[in-house]
Amino acid sequence: MGRDERDFEVAAGNGLMDRRFFLQAGVASSGLLMTATAAAKERSPWMNRPGSALSESGAPSTFEAHVKRVNVSPRMGTTGSGSSRTPIEHLDGIITPSRLHFERHHSGIPEIDPDQHRLVIHGLVDRPLSFDMESLARYPTVSRIQFLECSGNSGGMIAPTPMQGSASQIHGLVSASEWGGVPLRLLLEEAGVKATAKWLVADGADAAVMARSVPLDKILDDAIVALYQNGERLRPSNGYPMRLFLPGWEGNMSIKWLRSIRVTATPGMTKDETSKYSDLGDDGIATLFSFPMGVKSVITSPSPGLTLGAPGMYQISGIAWSGSGKIRRVEISTDGGKSWADAALDRHVLSKCLTRFRSAWRWDGGSALLKSRATDEDGNVQPTRDVVMKNRASNSFYHFNGIQAWQIDREGSASNVYA
Amino acid sequence: MGRDERDFEVAAGNGLMDRRFFLQAGVASSGLLMTATAAAKERSPWMNRPGSALSESGAPSTFEAHVKRVNVSPRMGTTGSGSSRTPIEHLDGIITPSRLHFERHHSGIPEIDPDQHRLVIHGLVDRPLSFDMESLARYPTVSRIQFLECSGNSGGMIAPTPMQGSASQIHGLVSASEWGGVPLRLLLEEAGVKATAKWLVADGADAAVMARSVPLDKILDDAIVALYQNGERLRPSNGYPMRLFLPGWEGNMSIKWLRSIRVTATPGMTKDETSKYSDLGDDGIATLFSFPMGVKSVITSPSPGLTLGAPGMYQISGIAWSGSGKIRRVEISTDGGKSWADAALDRHVLSKCLTRFRSAWRWDGGSALLKSRATDEDGNVQPTRDVVMKNRASNSFYHFNGIQAWQIDREGSASNVYA
Repeated sequence: MGRDERDFEVAAGNGLMDRRFFLQAGVASSGLLMTATAAAKERSPWMNRPGSALSESGAPSTFEAHVKRVNVSPRMGTTGSGSSRTPIEHLDGIITPSRLHFERHHSGIPEIDPDQHRLVIHGLVDRPLSFDMESLARYPTVSRIQFLECSGNSGGMIAPTPMQGSASQIHGLVSASEWGGVPLRLLLEEAGVKATAKWLVADGADAAVMARSVPLDKILDDAIVALYQNGERLRPSNGYPMRLFLPGWEGNMSIKWLRSIRVTATPGMTKDETSKYSDLGDDGIATLFSFPMGVKSVITSPSPGLTLGAPGMYQISGIAWSGSGKIRRVEISTDGGKSWADAALDRHVLSKCLTRFRSAWRWDGGSALLKSRATDEDGNVQPTRDVVMKNRASNSFYHFNGIQAWQIDREGSASNVYA
Repeated sequence: MGRDERDFEVAAGNGLMDRRFFLQAGVASSGLLMTATAAAKERSPWMNRPGSALSESGAPSTFEAHVKRVNVSPRMGTTGSGSSRTPIEHLDGIITPSRLHFERHHSGIPEIDPDQHRLVIHGLVDRPLSFDMESLARYPTVSRIQFLECSGNSGGMIAPTPMQGSASQIHGLVSASEWGGVPLRLLLEEAGVKATAKWLVADGADAAVMARSVPLDKILDDAIVALYQNGERLRPSNGYPMRLFLPGWEGNMSIKWLRSIRVTATPGMTKDETSKYSDLGDDGIATLFSFPMGVKSVITSPSPGLTLGAPGMYQISGIAWSGSGKIRRVEISTDGGKSWADAALDRHVLSKCLTRFRSAWRWDGGSALLKSRATDEDGNVQPTRDVVMKNRASNSFYHFNGIQAWQIDREGSASNVYA
């Protein structure tokens, strides 16, 4: 007979099971089948005709058409200034399919002919250089699985009352991919960086000429000129034919359609780092250059729109990440933070990457308040919303990494609450 | 000034550089740019108009339309019995985009309504069980990045003379994904496996009712009922809504469209493990049940179809994998095996997964013979073609893992040779 969940220790209040349960025990939610042999011999209709043919490039099932980017929101009067969000509540694991990677563009997606595109490195260098695709392809390449998050992700949580929407509508400006490309350090060594250099200004070949300043230390550490995403060449919406990729740092700095790197002594104070992407305090002073994204997590299942069925065992699952390195721990509460239990982390816990966490939960059919709290390898703990909001101006928007609370009602529906 | 490759040690004959070169030095293949400021100010045509709009689901660049599955080859008189291959020479990193995952079907791709689909577990169990999608979703899930290889991959290498084709045409029946699903062990515990059970027979809901026998030890070790691939639900061509996934074992055993698991005392001796997927020796005796795929590697760049340009520095890159665990080492030779040097391995060296390797090579414009040789963590070393062919019948086809040799000619073109 299957094991009984009552054999296992309860780890925290309101039905949260010890994580050993998660590894060891079944759930007993399956239908008992008395006529197994008959059922196994039954042929479903699709077994009575040959299936569809092979193809050069595949597509998802038509039954999964609802899994698409949401809040595809161009700004008034533009075609391509705006954002779209990854449907995180419909995904599992840590990789985001490239077709569903979030987007944030400032003047749409340019269609760039790679044969005409050049990357120019100039400024405080001994030898200004110009790279075409073929010359870049000769350089050593590295690939790493890492997250990218828009600094405006979860910005809706700053509103005075909780916005209602799906997990993706609130937190879907984060994705993870395998990013492959040439360490920018190697290209700078080729150009010969002068001793007075401390920054660079990178800009893109979109019509907005998105431009950001990056400290040279970050470039020497782990920046790449990305050419590949999830095995294939970058997609246009992610910077084809090349983008800067700065692991763990706010997404807009990973300049898409990278065309120019100017090595400088001081930051460029570009429009994109002064008019935006700064943090306004309630004293009226804006903090510039908040680069690494904070430690963060969100429960993606259950979440608004994914309604629980009958009471019983459920998997609580979500994603955690930190711009500082690896996730060390994720704790879950189903009683609003009165008690916490450690979630199980999936096998691949990678630096500056999404980490998948899971807990087993026996839902008794009553109301519940679900929270997750991540800690990274540097010991940074995801703060409460109150802490994040402290000393912020009411119209500040970026870098929200507070704990998300989902209220589950007696019908099994989830909603966003400040708690 | 950039470093000079002459400062670095040559690691093996015919221009193979020490792997420290790969980490430390540039290539000096970029164009020197004397008018950098002017070039950086030049606007490409796509910067003078807004780009295209945001979308619910993205697509690759039209300039990458050549990156598609190859050898899409239905058998005569069928729509969907055949295979298609991953374009490995156009990819980088370790993840295969789901749209390019190889396929091998026996009667096409069924279009399955997930609400109607059931997984039945029966046979030598205490309680036969039937799982629908909702009941499965309540069980603990795991996700892991692992390879899948068709046992017929590289079968063309058994021909008496070397077939000419791209790396994908010869070796493209291998891909890697993040696979997420429920450990089958948990479902079997729920059903209660009887003491006499030693095997199970899994079959699929395609019209061919693909069926394979699997030893119970493998199931208890690491088999999953996969529901997710690279973050999203499985695609129809990979078994939607669920498939068996057996890490490291020959691909056809990872039964797509999984519908029935019958627990048994002995193997089922199904048509799919007797008429096919066995290894015929030159003594006329066929070996059944060659489960784990052998340690293997192939250089994907350069390779046939990817012609080198001017002599100078190049990156040699490829993939290595083993059904037994992690890749420990990949060696490269550019002089046909007279001398070897260790390749650099990318950061993510995962168990039963593709591992990306790279070496720096100074091509002098002469002919060269490129080989790669992988070793796994159990000490298994990829064999030469001669060793693999020993005692095989001439019409044997499966489980070829011999070393691939690419002949580079003075024009920089690569071809398949037995050497």
